[in-house]
Amino acid sequence: MARTVEVTELALRDAHQSLLATRMALEDMVPACEDIDQAGYWSVECWGGATYDACIRFLNEDPWERLRTFRALMPNTRLQMLLRGQNLLGYRHYEDSVVDRFVDKAAENGMDVFRVFDALNDIRNLRRALEAVKRTGKHAEGTICYTISPLHTVDTFVEMAKRLQDLGCHSICIKDMAALLRPQPAFEIVKGIKQTCGEETLVHVHVHSTTGVTLVSLMKAIEAGADLVDTSISSLSLGPGHNPTEALVEMLEGTGFETRLDKSRLLKIKDHFARIRPRYAEFESKFVGVETEIFDSQIPGGMISNMESQLKQQGAGDRVKEVLAEVPKVRQVAGYPPLVTPSSQIVGTQAVFNVLMGPYKVLTGEFADLMLGYYGETIGPRDPEVTRLAAEHNKKPPITDRPADHLTPEWDDLVAKAAALDGCNGSDEDVLTYAMFPQVAPKFFAKRSEGPKNLGKDPVTAAAAAAAANPAVKAIDSRGPVTSPITYTVRIGDTSRTVTVEPA
Amino acid sequence: MARTVEVTELALRDAHQSLLATRMALEDMVPACEDIDQAGYWSVECWGGATYDACIRFLNEDPWERLRTFRALMPNTRLQMLLRGQNLLGYRHYEDSVVDRFVDKAAENGMDVFRVFDALNDIRNLRRALEAVKRTGKHAEGTICYTISPLHTVDTFVEMAKRLQDLGCHSICIKDMAALLRPQPAFEIVKGIKQTCGEETLVHVHVHSTTGVTLVSLMKAIEAGADLVDTSISSLSLGPGHNPTEALVEMLEGTGFETRLDKSRLLKIKDHFARIRPRYAEFESKFVGVETEIFDSQIPGGMISNMESQLKQQGAGDRVKEVLAEVPKVRQVAGYPPLVTPSSQIVGTQAVFNVLMGPYKVLTGEFADLMLGYYGETIGPRDPEVTRLAAEHNKKPPITDRPADHLTPEWDDLVAKAAALDGCNGSDEDVLTYAMFPQVAPKFFAKRSEGPKNLGKDPVTAAAAAAAANPAVKAIDSRGPVTSPITYTVRIGDTSRTVTVEPA
Repeated sequence: MARTVEVTELALRDAHQSLLATRMALEDMVPACEDIDQAGYWSVECWGGATYDACIRFLNEDPWERLRTFRALMPNTRLQMLLRGQNLLGYRHYEDSVVDRFVDKAAENGMDVFRVFDALNDIRNLRRALEAVKRTGKHAEGTICYTISPLHTVDTFVEMAKRLQDLGCHSICIKDMAALLRPQPAFEIVKGIKQTCGEETLVHVHVHSTTGVTLVSLMKAIEAGADLVDTSISSLSLGPGHNPTEALVEMLEGTGFETRLDKSRLLKIKDHFARIRPRYAEFESKFVGVETEIFDSQIPGGMISNMESQLKQQGAGDRVKEVLAEVPKVRQVAGYPPLVTPSSQIVGTQAVFNVLMGPYKVLTGEFADLMLGYYGETIGPRDPEVTRLAAEHNKKPPITDRPADHLTPEWDDLVAKAAALDGCNGSDEDVLTYAMFPQVAPKFFAKRSEGPKNLGKDPVTAAAAAAAANPAVKAIDSRGPVTSPITYTVRIGDTSRTVTVEPA
Repeated sequence: MARTVEVTELALRDAHQSLLATRMALEDMVPACEDIDQAGYWSVECWGGATYDACIRFLNEDPWERLRTFRALMPNTRLQMLLRGQNLLGYRHYEDSVVDRFVDKAAENGMDVFRVFDALNDIRNLRRALEAVKRTGKHAEGTICYTISPLHTVDTFVEMAKRLQDLGCHSICIKDMAALLRPQPAFEIVKGIKQTCGEETLVHVHVHSTTGVTLVSLMKAIEAGADLVDTSISSLSLGPGHNPTEALVEMLEGTGFETRLDKSRLLKIKDHFARIRPRYAEFESKFVGVETEIFDSQIPGGMISNMESQLKQQGAGDRVKEVLAEVPKVRQVAGYPPLVTPSSQIVGTQAVFNVLMGPYKVLTGEFADLMLGYYGETIGPRDPEVTRLAAEHNKKPPITDRPADHLTPEWDDLVAKAAALDGCNGSDEDVLTYAMFPQVAPKFFAKRSEGPKNLGKDPVTAAAAAAAANPAVKAIDSRGPVTSPITYTVRIGDTSRTVTVEPA
């Protein structure tokens, strides 16, 4: 008897986030929903920070309406979301009552599985969100962000899994956002979790494909007992995305493991997205190949493109290699945080500043907060001298307790501010949209009635138009993933300036 | 102590054959040769039928000069070639003395490793070439073409390995030209060969990446004891090509296996081909993603593009799916040959004819020869009724002995014919060029003094020129792999016509 391996399909969230800068419109997903719902997936990941952000920033789509649409169209499949713990879908810590409210509303609108992670793997940043999920009766998945550093070992990851289990998580996810999880540690970590937490503990493995090795890692994880794995339909796979769903199915044939997936449904889903994808050519990631240098720099592909655009804005596009070499040093100074939103942006930006202006001559407010413990605890000690500079810069002391304990109740204030916005409908959902994205929400509310925008273009016409406009330049302009606006305070000597960088 | 896994780099032969229609010019490879030579590869595959063909057909390059250049530039690494057994680099059987002569001259010009295969896995078609290689003192690698059919089992492949070992091969290659080798059979076949032929038997595994599963297959083959594996540098990898060399290196970390490869050299090789590849955009394979449907049709990606172009020439471009469904039926009728040059072309063309004109209403001369045993024995019985039609069509009886035994000595005749050609230098190498490609060699000899042509183009200029010429049409035209001219005799009722199809 073959053991069943369950599969989460990523096409509707992480796949187009990683490959097409999160720009896919709901209407381009709707025709695939019935096949996805009938294919036999354990869950469909379809919601998260970047998709929410892109909905209101670029697509004039209400993300809650998107969620309700998925719920209606996929009644037989668990809907899954990625939640940044105490950060929810935003880039700061929210006070506990906002966390509770968000989880309640997401569950009420149809979400089934909440994959909850924290960029620093600080369990205190996960606890409240996980508790909220459990209270709704939905599936609470506690997440370990996988990374490589001199301090991260198989044992540290297994210990974290045990702590997540102790919080009552329904499953444990190993989240490898940068494709750094090689086959052997994949095997050892899954094995370790099963041995420590019990064989019945559900282990879910999420890997990207950037380095080209992670389908092998999934095989090894499955051999070690992994119960659930994440893949994306082949026409939205590989490069900075994920391993192809169909390849997983074929890989397992004859091995004693099998999925429940219906190959004829997969073929239809594949064909659908193969037709859709060329419409988003202008948003295609530049990183379509295999990038094993990541094993040395530990920098996710999406982060490299962000750094490149920051450097170009500063007229220093030729200094990427120096910045890549600086990133591991900044990580060490900061106590080896994993690199995932928002730590990836914070560390990456500080590395850019270090290269352009000298090491720690200029700090960003976010990096100073990271050094001071306001994002949580890191696995390693933080550099005392840079911590001193950070305290001076942000004019506050380091902390060691849970960051959200320093926040005061904010829900009523958010309700009042949202209600004052033109076009806000007064629902809790709208308040949450404002809470997550206070700079973007006002514009979205004001224009919401105009309805969704589809940024996809007929590829032939689009290429011709671009070539006609500027025939000597390549027709396709690649963009990195969506990023939040980040405000820096730049101090040089006595002069101080505030700079906000946001996607064009 | 980790066990060393040796690696063959495919960048200089199969990689650009699979990805760039074999069009890469020698001068675009030369700058990478020192790094390849110093990287620690066991061998570098750099010569074969399609590269030889493309040299004289498209690049005005003498393939023997290319071989000598590689020899001079890579003194520390074995040079490896792919040889089609009794077909050598051509598309028909050659008489034994031509086989001997070819192997002698290849060895003399610098070839070290001869991977010898037969499209039907008929060992009688391999014997003479393997004996010739052994006589030169070079490495004779006997090859099993991997395929899937109701008759092909792990045992049949292991039995073939035993027979190759009995012929005195220095190593056994499992050649998976269509990416059909899943992890489990990869493990079982390698294990079976080691158990049957002895643990010391060198097993070499060649896989393509089309289906997305074969890096896992390499992992399993290595776990089962495979000694050598084939990969291609990442910037010339994936799609219908091969698994990335760097990914193999990283995959093995911590597993108890390791390569001898120098990562810094690999990075340089990667960067070189990343710069070169865009110059050949017009030749890029259309099949860049993952195609798991191949598991059902068993049709290599390159073959599909050939069939598509044949169908378009007939104004029947919309009937590809019917043809794909017909191919397995034709394979069954023909006794389940593997699909690799030339059987892939022969079976594919017959499937096209069956769909367009009715099953076996029209036979090609080659398909009739296949049915009559003139390409060798197949694993399964051939359909008696179609065999009868074939005998009638080709006006000759079926045979059961070795096809080359029906040939008469031809070397002197080839020498005389080659010598009569304008520009032929009278060398054995030129006679062999004429022998392999009698239709192309005359034009090549006549123009050889003009020197090599590089078909690469600056990608920005090329895209702009294409867009300017025809702005409403996609700038990039994809081509299938190089194919030989094939002449069909088309008979309908009493009317008979000869049609020759060759690359434009």
